[in-house]
Amino acid sequence: MTDFNFYSPTEFVFGKDRETECGKYVVKYGGSKVLIVYGGGSAVRSGLLDKVKTSLTENGVTFDELSGVKPNPRDDLVYKGIDICKDKGIDFILAVGGGSVIDTSKAIAMGAVYDGDFWDFFSGKTAEKALPVGTVLTIAAAGSEGSGDAVITKIDGMLKRGSGCDAIRPRFSVLDPALTQTLPAYQTACGATDIMAHVFERYFTNTKEVEITDRLCEAVLMTMIKETPRAIADPDNYDARANIMWAGMVAHNNIVGVGREQDWNSHNIEHELSALYDCAHGAGLAVVMPAWMEFVYKHDVMRFCQMATRVFGVKMDFADPDTTAREGIRRFRAFLHSIGMPINFAELRADVKDIPVLLDQISKGAMRNGGFVTLSLDDIGEIYRIAARAEL
Amino acid sequence: MTDFNFYSPTEFVFGKDRETECGKYVVKYGGSKVLIVYGGGSAVRSGLLDKVKTSLTENGVTFDELSGVKPNPRDDLVYKGIDICKDKGIDFILAVGGGSVIDTSKAIAMGAVYDGDFWDFFSGKTAEKALPVGTVLTIAAAGSEGSGDAVITKIDGMLKRGSGCDAIRPRFSVLDPALTQTLPAYQTACGATDIMAHVFERYFTNTKEVEITDRLCEAVLMTMIKETPRAIADPDNYDARANIMWAGMVAHNNIVGVGREQDWNSHNIEHELSALYDCAHGAGLAVVMPAWMEFVYKHDVMRFCQMATRVFGVKMDFADPDTTAREGIRRFRAFLHSIGMPINFAELRADVKDIPVLLDQISKGAMRNGGFVTLSLDDIGEIYRIAARAEL
Repeated sequence: MTDFNFYSPTEFVFGKDRETECGKYVVKYGGSKVLIVYGGGSAVRSGLLDKVKTSLTENGVTFDELSGVKPNPRDDLVYKGIDICKDKGIDFILAVGGGSVIDTSKAIAMGAVYDGDFWDFFSGKTAEKALPVGTVLTIAAAGSEGSGDAVITKIDGMLKRGSGCDAIRPRFSVLDPALTQTLPAYQTACGATDIMAHVFERYFTNTKEVEITDRLCEAVLMTMIKETPRAIADPDNYDARANIMWAGMVAHNNIVGVGREQDWNSHNIEHELSALYDCAHGAGLAVVMPAWMEFVYKHDVMRFCQMATRVFGVKMDFADPDTTAREGIRRFRAFLHSIGMPINFAELRADVKDIPVLLDQISKGAMRNGGFVTLSLDDIGEIYRIAARAEL
Repeated sequence: MTDFNFYSPTEFVFGKDRETECGKYVVKYGGSKVLIVYGGGSAVRSGLLDKVKTSLTENGVTFDELSGVKPNPRDDLVYKGIDICKDKGIDFILAVGGGSVIDTSKAIAMGAVYDGDFWDFFSGKTAEKALPVGTVLTIAAAGSEGSGDAVITKIDGMLKRGSGCDAIRPRFSVLDPALTQTLPAYQTACGATDIMAHVFERYFTNTKEVEITDRLCEAVLMTMIKETPRAIADPDNYDARANIMWAGMVAHNNIVGVGREQDWNSHNIEHELSALYDCAHGAGLAVVMPAWMEFVYKHDVMRFCQMATRVFGVKMDFADPDTTAREGIRRFRAFLHSIGMPINFAELRADVKDIPVLLDQISKGAMRNGGFVTLSLDDIGEIYRIAARAEL
């Protein structure tokens, strides 16, 4: 196990209708003039936004609004939000939505107390301070409600880049599983895939002697395998939604990932797909991640056998461990397919002819050394090609 | 799943020699005049106390000291610490030790900013504020390094009682697994038993639909079953120690226990044993917990079958689930015996004739309704009797 610091100070407020308490928590964490950030129609139509505003007003908190956050959120709205914060003296950002809304809010929070361009924090600089952020989560997926991370796409060049620091960890996050009951099956499955990917990015490591975090990772994965099909078959199943929602937080606040080298290459490889095609991040991951696994599994066959046997219930083939490893990957892809995820380029509506474009984009900034296996640009091209032609 | 708040703001500073950074973290969390609380000789002899003092001095922090904390820590030392804090204007408590030292520090922290008797907080009152507490952990066991709980014994009447609030959650906790390498096998095993008990107290619940926390509980238990024998066979095995240390925190900061009714009857039943015999808490739990399981398992045989199959690898007997449930309990007791724990009154040096005394003590305050099975005083008597005569 490697040395680490773990710091997750967010207060999680979990349960049905608890969004009606958000005003109280804004006050508790020092907010008086709030910018509410949200996406579009669904938060309005469902009545959620009204509940949030009522709770703020009842607690003496004033607010401005910024709507229009889209999936794969972009920098233009961040600049707009920063301007509002500076003009209106906003002292707290309240994100009402999923990962895109929360990440936009985090970027605004950093930019609002910074004299330079907020994009600096997505180009390697670490933010020392930010406005406090709270969240009312509506999709179990990104884990941004419990993390110090944000991902934003710069329209100029369509660069999708991440930023991370303790200052943007939410002060509180309201997790009401009932809010996710209205999600369509496809979005539910995309979220589930993202959650599982957050675990796998941590699970595949070269760090030895990490039994506790291995077991915690496997706990989240097995939960997702049980609960996701239930939520898709019965969208109003509160308990399935609740298990998924807490699993999504646990998957990404890093308690399952400390003390070990992590990978994150699949995320980087996927980011170029969703930047180019504006597809759902989870859908892109469903195509990329099993392909990445097929490309790298020989690097540590036993680790893949562990996944196959412990998570997917594959019987170990002691005479031919490769078979066991590959069967684990096959079952993962079959699971993704069973919940309605695309498993190849055609199903994602991506085009194999665009691979040079994807590689050109990835070479501009997201190439990383390290992780489970260091990948060259050629390696990434091969992973895209495996992903393009994948079958069940 | 039930509603909950989860709040664990402690910064965990994990790794070899990281106690040399403790001065930096005291300053980060607002300390300038520290009371160092510790037990006795081992922190001095090992050189740990000198390292801590050096780190404080290098960071411009002054300090006073309070030594002499014993296992099953008592109120007299708490009063002494409170007096020092008030006399010297202490603004931060640094616990250097295990659960007893940390709990003493937490009690002092509450009492130092309170005009009344600190025991009020162990008699049902909730503390609203406390001096900030930091820890340098030397034993993986109590989980107090990441919890908002403390347990203290009042000498007058030998009442062992708990207190809990967010104000006493440590600001930071240094977890250096190497510090636990000098622990004797017996103490290592007592700590491991306590960690497993913290999980079981959460695992046995009447709340349905808690797959994520079930799986997380099982992850910690399986880790302990793997790593504890390794640490006992090879005390200098840093990685085994590291896995146990992080498991001990995860077991008790409540991330594996949210959203579900918990039990804690075994802890209450044990507390009277350690109060009367001054035995190690973990040793008492090793005797009590399997006996409690035998007494209650018929309340939910399938939950015990889940434990038996998932944690202890028992094959499910579908024709006779009781057999599977009992085999899981048998394997738990056999595991405890294999790591050198007592499994009955004789091995604990407890006397069956004292059961009326134990029951009289427990009737004075620790009787609780609820939990997995509500226990009458007669039920508790029967659990003590099962514990008294237990065999492998």
